[in-house]
Amino acid sequence: MIKELTVRTSGKEDFVDVTEKVKRILENSNTDEGTVTLFVPHTTAAVTINENADPDVKSDMIRTLNRMVPEDWHYDHMEGNSPAHVKASLVGMSEIVPIQRGKMLLGTWQGIYFCEFDGPRTRKLYIKISD
Amino acid sequence: MIKELTVRTSGKEDFVDVTEKVKRILENSNTDEGTVTLFVPHTTAAVTINENADPDVKSDMIRTLNRMVPEDWHYDHMEGNSPAHVKASLVGMSEIVPIQRGKMLLGTWQGIYFCEFDGPRTRKLYIKISD
Amino acid sequence: MIKELTVRTSGKEDFVDVTEKVKRILENSNTDEGTVTLFVPHTTAAVTINENADPDVKSDMIRTLNRMVPEDWHYDHMEGNSPAHVKASLVGMSEIVPIQRGKMLLGTWQGIYFCEFDGPRTRKLYIKISD
Repeated sequence: MIKELTVRTSGKEDFVDVTEKVKRILENSNTDEGTVTLFVPHTTAAVTINENADPDVKSDMIRTLNRMVPEDWHYDHMEGNSPAHVKASLVGMSEIVPIQRGKMLLGTWQGIYFCEFDGPRTRKLYIKISD
Repeated sequence: MIKELTVRTSGKEDFVDVTEKVKRILENSNTDEGTVTLFVPHTTAAVTINENADPDVKSDMIRTLNRMVPEDWHYDHMEGNSPAHVKASLVGMSEIVPIQRGKMLLGTWQGIYFCEFDGPRTRKLYIKISD
Repeated sequence: MIKELTVRTSGKEDFVDVTEKVKRILENSNTDEGTVTLFVPHTTAAVTINENADPDVKSDMIRTLNRMVPEDWHYDHMEGNSPAHVKASLVGMSEIVPIQRGKMLLGTWQGIYFCEFDGPRTRKLYIKISD
């Protein structure tokens, strides 16, 4: 079963917490054991799992990635969004989370983030439930 | 079903587009729904999914990774390829792509790249199709 | 089948080789073909696969990540461990390894590392075997 989630991002960089939406999709699938595969079908966006308690973690991550991959380095790609392509590959476009007794085995502080690096845009996230 | 793809890389760093080869393996497997797992059995190479329209994206990514992990920092490892090991872990050695109606759910601009960081070499990429 | 591995880390940063433990779990599962999913349920730790022959690779990787994400950049998050959160998302919290004839298809030099970025702590790694 594959579900497509529509994610509306704000600003050039944005981490959108989609944990509750993925949980609901899993609940509706009635899957007891298996895996949730998260896949981003874009080249300037990514998916990660990180702290969703303090919103400062999110903004620190965005700012740190911007310092690591500065806009003012030399890039040839004419669209001017090469830093976003690099960040997408560093963070990654696929993750896989085990399911146990109908729930994702996320840690207490873990949330699933859709990561925008070239927004704002309307994006897609694929969620595949395998048993 | 697991297939092994042989990838010949050029130069020290190289991103080789293997999308069409992976598509052909999937077609031959006659798998309608499931996942494609990509796995690199090397420690100085990786796999990622990114833009395959403008070749400048590929060279920008290679150049940016080289600036992020400079050769002239201090490394102890005697083989002298520690930057390649770091890049391999940053980009990652496994990805998973959902299959729907016999096709990988790749976005319009997404291609699968085998990423060489310590070439040129003859490398392997494992492709596992699960239904 | 999901197994939980307890990992005791030493020092602020630490890469703990868990390859043999994962191999034993796979052997006990009597799984011939499938995948091993590795998942870290923490927000300042990660999992990667890299060289486990020369221990210098491990220390080079830790030192390089510390240079890439310096402690003395500005971070807002009050707990003061934002660099660890960033490193966790760069290295990643999930990996998937194909199984063939009862064994993980790891390359000759590949070992599985639990990556600590905010230790020392007692941590968990989930190992899911799917056939």
